Amino acid sequence: MAEHKLEQQWTPELLDFHKELGDKQMGPLWASVFSASEPRPRAVPYLWKKELILEMLEKAKELLQVGVGSIDRRAVYLINPGMKHLEPHGWGGATQTLYAAVQALNPGEIAPPHRHMTSALRFIMQGTGASGVVNGVKYNFEPGDYVITPEWCWHDHINEGEDTVFWMDCLDIPFTSALTSSFFEMYPETRQPVEFPEDYNTKRYAGGMVRPISDRKPSPAPLGRYKYDLTKQALEGQSEFAPDAGDGYAVEYINPSTGKDANRRIGARMQQLPPQFKGKAHRHTHSAVYNVYRGSGYTIMNGVRFDWKAGDIFALPAWTWHEHVNTSETEEAVLFSTNDLPIMELFDFEKEQAYPENDGHQEILS
Amino acid sequence: MAEHKLEQQWTPELLDFHKELGDKQMGPLWASVFSASEPRPRAVPYLWKKELILEMLEKAKELLQVGVGSIDRRAVYLINPGMKHLEPHGWGGATQTLYAAVQALNPGEIAPPHRHMTSALRFIMQGTGASGVVNGVKYNFEPGDYVITPEWCWHDHINEGEDTVFWMDCLDIPFTSALTSSFFEMYPETRQPVEFPEDYNTKRYAGGMVRPISDRKPSPAPLGRYKYDLTKQALEGQSEFAPDAGDGYAVEYINPSTGKDANRRIGARMQQLPPQFKGKAHRHTHSAVYNVYRGSGYTIMNGVRFDWKAGDIFALPAWTWHEHVNTSETEEAVLFSTNDLPIMELFDFEKEQAYPENDGHQEILS
Amino acid sequence: MAEHKLEQQWTPELLDFHKELGDKQMGPLWASVFSASEPRPRAVPYLWKKELILEMLEKAKELLQVGVGSIDRRAVYLINPGMKHLEPHGWGGATQTLYAAVQALNPGEIAPPHRHMTSALRFIMQGTGASGVVNGVKYNFEPGDYVITPEWCWHDHINEGEDTVFWMDCLDIPFTSALTSSFFEMYPETRQPVEFPEDYNTKRYAGGMVRPISDRKPSPAPLGRYKYDLTKQALEGQSEFAPDAGDGYAVEYINPSTGKDANRRIGARMQQLPPQFKGKAHRHTHSAVYNVYRGSGYTIMNGVRFDWKAGDIFALPAWTWHEHVNTSETEEAVLFSTNDLPIMELFDFEKEQAYPENDGHQEILS
Amino acid sequence: MAEHKLEQQWTPELLDFHKELGDKQMGPLWASVFSASEPRPRAVPYLWKKELILEMLEKAKELLQVGVGSIDRRAVYLINPGMKHLEPHGWGGATQTLYAAVQALNPGEIAPPHRHMTSALRFIMQGTGASGVVNGVKYNFEPGDYVITPEWCWHDHINEGEDTVFWMDCLDIPFTSALTSSFFEMYPETRQPVEFPEDYNTKRYAGGMVRPISDRKPSPAPLGRYKYDLTKQALEGQSEFAPDAGDGYAVEYINPSTGKDANRRIGARMQQLPPQFKGKAHRHTHSAVYNVYRGSGYTIMNGVRFDWKAGDIFALPAWTWHEHVNTSETEEAVLFSTNDLPIMELFDFEKEQAYPENDGHQEILS
Ligand SMILES: [Fe+2]
Ligand SMILES: [Fe+2]
Ligand SMILES: [Fe+2]
Ligand SMILES: [Fe+2]
Ligand SMILES: [Fe+2]
Ligand SMILES: [Fe+2]
Ligand SMILES: [Fe+2]
Ligand SMILES: [Fe+2]
Repeated sequence: MAEHKLEQQWTPELLDFHKELGDKQMGPLWASVFSASEPRPRAVPYLWKKELILEMLEKAKELLQVGVGSIDRRAVYLINPGMKHLEPHGWGGATQTLYAAVQALNPGEIAPPHRHMTSALRFIMQGTGASGVVNGVKYNFEPGDYVITPEWCWHDHINEGEDTVFWMDCLDIPFTSALTSSFFEMYPETRQPVEFPEDYNTKRYAGGMVRPISDRKPSPAPLGRYKYDLTKQALEGQSEFAPDAGDGYAVEYINPSTGKDANRRIGARMQQLPPQFKGKAHRHTHSAVYNVYRGSGYTIMNGVRFDWKAGDIFALPAWTWHEHVNTSETEEAVLFSTNDLPIMELFDFEKEQAYPENDGHQEILS
Repeated sequence: MAEHKLEQQWTPELLDFHKELGDKQMGPLWASVFSASEPRPRAVPYLWKKELILEMLEKAKELLQVGVGSIDRRAVYLINPGMKHLEPHGWGGATQTLYAAVQALNPGEIAPPHRHMTSALRFIMQGTGASGVVNGVKYNFEPGDYVITPEWCWHDHINEGEDTVFWMDCLDIPFTSALTSSFFEMYPETRQPVEFPEDYNTKRYAGGMVRPISDRKPSPAPLGRYKYDLTKQALEGQSEFAPDAGDGYAVEYINPSTGKDANRRIGARMQQLPPQFKGKAHRHTHSAVYNVYRGSGYTIMNGVRFDWKAGDIFALPAWTWHEHVNTSETEEAVLFSTNDLPIMELFDFEKEQAYPENDGHQEILS
Repeated sequence: MAEHKLEQQWTPELLDFHKELGDKQMGPLWASVFSASEPRPRAVPYLWKKELILEMLEKAKELLQVGVGSIDRRAVYLINPGMKHLEPHGWGGATQTLYAAVQALNPGEIAPPHRHMTSALRFIMQGTGASGVVNGVKYNFEPGDYVITPEWCWHDHINEGEDTVFWMDCLDIPFTSALTSSFFEMYPETRQPVEFPEDYNTKRYAGGMVRPISDRKPSPAPLGRYKYDLTKQALEGQSEFAPDAGDGYAVEYINPSTGKDANRRIGARMQQLPPQFKGKAHRHTHSAVYNVYRGSGYTIMNGVRFDWKAGDIFALPAWTWHEHVNTSETEEAVLFSTNDLPIMELFDFEKEQAYPENDGHQEILS
Repeated sequence: MAEHKLEQQWTPELLDFHKELGDKQMGPLWASVFSASEPRPRAVPYLWKKELILEMLEKAKELLQVGVGSIDRRAVYLINPGMKHLEPHGWGGATQTLYAAVQALNPGEIAPPHRHMTSALRFIMQGTGASGVVNGVKYNFEPGDYVITPEWCWHDHINEGEDTVFWMDCLDIPFTSALTSSFFEMYPETRQPVEFPEDYNTKRYAGGMVRPISDRKPSPAPLGRYKYDLTKQALEGQSEFAPDAGDGYAVEYINPSTGKDANRRIGARMQQLPPQFKGKAHRHTHSAVYNVYRGSGYTIMNGVRFDWKAGDIFALPAWTWHEHVNTSETEEAVLFSTNDLPIMELFDFEKEQAYPENDGHQEILS
């Protein structure tokens, strides 16, 4: 619907009054309720190229060493051009609620343990030999894996291999900042003890929609690491049928003890676009950060085309029209993404709309 | 604790009074509250041998034909000797709440569609070529598969193969009978239409603890059929670690859209006992029906030893001590079981107790 | 819909086979699935006259004394003529799931403390001076009050007044019996200590749909006693508007910490029928026991008219047509009732139907 | 615990690098993780005097008229000095998540209907004769009443009396802004139709912790208006017992159909401090806005004393020590407050701590 239009004129007298109110720590509601009929995100559609991110991490590698006595984490985070007002408290969200960063860990480095009320997840982009320990469980990192660190779990990372390992971290920092709910604690030692056999949880979930009976009681991370080969199997299974018009083939990671999102405050998905897939546009209240895992193509967001290939990361703000295209004639594109849908759903904020014109395709404005 | 003992004596005068009350559709509470301190199930531990069940089905095969105009289902159900009072309404429960039967479907037979408020599940015991349609989705049946038919879903079965196919049906008939909540309806046609590609749901769940994003909304049977090979993978994964003292390696089937039991009113598990496994005893409020899928061994229930091998079925009543033993030195034993745990949990009725004496092992009384 | 009719004939050969199955602890499903299309309760509509109940209690008073060393509770329970098969385990339910009794406590008597997994509620019918202690909170009993004893709470009763006090007890004994989930324990002393000021909870809920902030965390009985004068106020408030066609003015008691039924396993209502109210008929899956608190009238159940006046109790089985009539031209009728709706709802068993013919009124058959 | 200290020095080279990152829409995590060990709210403790607020509204009255064609609402909102960065999007929250304003409606004025996804509540401060319509139900406003407007409900206000009526509005605008989830719509007419008898819901909740049986199904506002006289009764009932050390006697408003907060996204309480009450300090993650309804006293927040009397409003930020004192020797103080506890609890963000030193009392620093 149309915007709400007020007929009252702002006379000089009124403008003076508004200023006086401001001086007294008050504000005039009547000058604020030209309420937008729908969400107007501050965040903007934006894409960060892999090359640029890696270049920055290369510099960081030269200048800084990970480990106690130097820095804890070598990660550059992505600042949405529309969210700069959040700094430094809100750490420049990639979207309204989501923080995203790329982290690099060199062979031999140890990122020491800590824990926080912000919730974290990692998507392994490149390199092998690294691993993370979350509350005593060691998870090996392999490309394409999705690994979670729910709130207030001790976590550290180590690289015992020979390559630098890169992953994307995603946390709900802008959200916890908005709620002023952040607690943080350093672990007293350089590493936490590993209390379970290696990849204990992953091995207990080797197949099937079944869970060990001891995981019947809800817990934050009965699985912890979602290996890429199993996720890929699921996508292949779906591929026997017609793709979804907007998202191709898409799965979301679940916590087997609750049936809810693997990380209860941050959603995560893996999505496969078949060769030449040309998705239809839609928009929704939730926002997302996409990490291109395989392939190349583009996404149109609010009329602007963003070309991507493996390693690029892009931000989809709330209530923004978007459609995905795989430009390859032979290869699938695989997109990992993370979102604030779990938060939106809790208070029934989530709404979705299909693009109503032009057979579901936006006009490209730039 | 000890039973509650009343010191009041039943004089002839009192006994007359009790009789008078009965004539007036009343009863004396004081004569009833010698309450047991803990549950005393009417159901008893019991085992039905595969040979006997198959022999009965063989007779049924000679005498009766499945299909419209004759009988709808060729199944013999198991009557716990302690539950005969339920007949005919409660259909002689295998335990307090669970109905169990073995069904045989011959090549070419069609068991016509109907639906009911009782909830059903099937465990495929033997034979290939049969399939079931549940609300428009066709599921092929293979040995070891677990297939669900939640309440009020249309379902029919067909055998398009060359063998007689046998499976165990389990329903919550005694429970729905106790609640007088049973509705039933025949489908107007001989078969219902198949509206999805064959094994549609099964293929969409080909691997990983992920779900198609369209299954985020809770629904009764987003998966429907749990293939044995995937369940077996899960059991093998667990087998790298130490077994549970009582249950060896055990998984339960879950509904990917809710994280709760695959069939929300009836629990189901698959459990693997390694060679020479000698479990410790425990008891719990929930009852169970076991179907031996592979291997041989015995279970001691309240001091009585019940020897079993593949194809046997046994009933574990509520609050009954039990311990499982795999007598093979080389082969695993694999037990499917179904239980009323979801019902027990809803009102916090579930309690569990480890056998406190003799290092967790019962003395065999008979 | 019509009943499901099987065309198979029971030949002598088949009847022999059925008998053989029975000998082997099995049964023929094909002979059982003449499934009723809708619930057929075993319980029947029935009414117990106040005079008869009081006469029985008068006899019990002569013959038995309440207190340690004699009997624990002087109560006669109501046995639905259709539920006699439950005895002695199921204590002859008033309906499928509900036990109901009338209890009399004489001046000076103490009914000693115990606790059980069955859940209890009391409706005070007549007399003052009695009280009950539930987990350390003492509640005074006054006519019209509704008092709860959730599962596993210690409870005892005492009469410190000068009249015999009568109340109805309602418990979910048939339900917990069906689930074999009953635990029971005697308190080691004659009385439990009173740990809170008298009527502590009742006073903390003196008005308004507000709760003490300490009751924000769900607990089984933050209120415990629902005083009649407040319930009456609520009914009067409603009475400014048009009555419900079937139930007149009706309220249900809620637990302020959960918003669910005061006793989570047994529902309870108070209902006011204005003078000359002539309700329309309906039926539902849940069953109920009515206790007439004030006034006189009748209820037609499945075509049979049951006349009632204050103090009478009647049973409404599951899925039974019923309509209430207040025959007084000047006085309201007030009916307390208790039901198994919370159980029905948990698994979505509840269904309701308005009587479709004759403007909603049954023909009286007897 | 102590803050996390990094030993890495910020060399000029590093500072250049940080700047380069900023130019590329990225940021250095290592320079941000000097994470605070606990929440550091941007909002500060602050108090707005009644006189000042009324003076501003008096001016607004002269300059602006409420009604279609002029302004929709005559309200001045309170801007926490620490939250000014939120403007204009976040409308200067009174705390991190809560918007608060005082609204004045003159005799004869009509504030036209609209609806929004932000959730609203009103606390009536002064004057009679005004009323509000929420989704077709008309609620009269009387001093001390608490009235809710859940999200997406049509609402308008009218003053049919002879006084200007003042109330506090509280909405979750900063929260919905942070989530970019705000939708807004004007009603096409000047007023919405009133579809229920006057104060329909209020009358249906005239007493007792009971609800009309038609409100068993959860709905957003079965009650809508919480009359002061009933709330006062509840506070008086509590007053027979010892007060809570920190909050005196306090109740929270509940939705009778859910048992949760009356407005599911914003909590509200009424609290009574007996004469000479001197509360102990505590802090919690949730923030609050207090509106002094009766009496006079002061609140110490993080060591600063804020004196208040009826009509004053003060903001309590997250994780801020606070203790309340009633300075009157004879009169009770009554404080209404509104909070973001429901949001905090949804993701288990709520923590609480008692002030550990000096017998629970802060030192006054200014
Ligand atoms: Fe971290
Ligand atoms: Fe999307
Ligand atoms: Fe069936
Ligand atoms: Fe067991
Ligand atoms: Fe009892
Ligand atoms: Fe009814
Ligand atoms: Fe509004
Ligand atoms: Fe507080």
